[in-house]
Amino acid sequence: MAEFNTGLPSVRLVQQWIKDKKEVDVKLITNDLLVGIILWQDPQCIYLSEVSGQSTLIWRDSLVYLKPKG
Amino acid sequence: MAEFNTGLPSVRLVQQWIKDKKEVDVKLITNDLLVGIILWQDPQCIYLSEVSGQSTLIWRDSLVYLKPKG
Amino acid sequence: MAEFNTGLPSVRLVQQWIKDKKEVDVKLITNDLLVGIILWQDPQCIYLSEVSGQSTLIWRDSLVYLKPKG
Amino acid sequence: MAEFNTGLPSVRLVQQWIKDKKEVDVKLITNDLLVGIILWQDPQCIYLSEVSGQSTLIWRDSLVYLKPKG
Amino acid sequence: MAEFNTGLPSVRLVQQWIKDKKEVDVKLITNDLLVGIILWQDPQCIYLSEVSGQSTLIWRDSLVYLKPKG
Amino acid sequence: MAEFNTGLPSVRLVQQWIKDKKEVDVKLITNDLLVGIILWQDPQCIYLSEVSGQSTLIWRDSLVYLKPKG
Repeated sequence: MAEFNTGLPSVRLVQQWIKDKKEVDVKLITNDLLVGIILWQDPQCIYLSEVSGQSTLIWRDSLVYLKPKG
Repeated sequence: MAEFNTGLPSVRLVQQWIKDKKEVDVKLITNDLLVGIILWQDPQCIYLSEVSGQSTLIWRDSLVYLKPKG
Repeated sequence: MAEFNTGLPSVRLVQQWIKDKKEVDVKLITNDLLVGIILWQDPQCIYLSEVSGQSTLIWRDSLVYLKPKG
Repeated sequence: MAEFNTGLPSVRLVQQWIKDKKEVDVKLITNDLLVGIILWQDPQCIYLSEVSGQSTLIWRDSLVYLKPKG
Repeated sequence: MAEFNTGLPSVRLVQQWIKDKKEVDVKLITNDLLVGIILWQDPQCIYLSEVSGQSTLIWRDSLVYLKPKG
Repeated sequence: MAEFNTGLPSVRLVQQWIKDKKEVDVKLITNDLLVGIILWQDPQCIYLSEVSGQSTLIWRDSLVYLKPKG
């Protein structure tokens, strides 16, 4: 897995979505599709506040894609 | 896989759940969903005491997400 | 995962498709097949503008293959 | 994958099961569930003597979890 | 993933198939089976000219096996 | 993935099977089960001569387990 470099465009884009409290679709390698707002990210995980109110600690290695809503 | 850095927010969050004996849902890449209390974590694994009383050594690379209950 | 070296033929080929706004099929490990134009790439992700108009941040580790259209 | 550090709690726990000839369930990423006694472990594999008498060299990267029996 | 060392027997074997324009079966982690001639390889990908005439950039991490035809 | 260290018990065991021309079952992450004799191994692959006479270059990262026959 690439080293976690906060200067990367992809890391900055996620940081922007966090700042904007942007709702995103989160597709996982198990084919789960979660929906929510990303609270924070670190080299190992992203922390998602799901629309259901549930908080979920997601392993970065299991992420397939993120789709911002609207 | 990111180096295991105990200062990471995600590692600290799991450590907090361990301290609080928080019950969590553990989703694995095989689509298994285990439920229990995390006893400890290290760079390779987390050790889960399942609600069934069974102890399970789970490889970190197979973790998809953790959801704290309640 | 190989270090992200912008001199690699595969990285340069994707860069060429970005410059040419080439439409590509994107096959993911979940068997999803997305179609669109790659806006940019970095060591962790590629950013795809799907034909549906949706933008999607795709993790490089979940890429299986890219097929240029036409 | 984390460096193989024999001081890790998870490595020591497996070593204990080896010493005690503890029967374990071994869940793999293909959803296979093998049952047997671990003969030895190294940074790449674990070597399992299955209850059927078959010996099986299992890649560490394909391990999901180990459950000690009884 | 092992560092990409052009001296490896496996890398040299693929290079030989490239030189010989050998047709190969390419099995991917999504269970796709592609058939074609490998045009080139680099640390991240192999570039395949499929029998259908389609060119496909395949991520090395998604390769399961290659079978030379005939 | 662990560095390829020819001193590892698991690497030496495979080397022994190669020397003995031992027939093995090879389980892959796609759930394929190949059967044959391993001709050689390197840090990236193992090269298998299948019972069907077909030679197959298998990526080490896609190996789940090896079972020696008989």
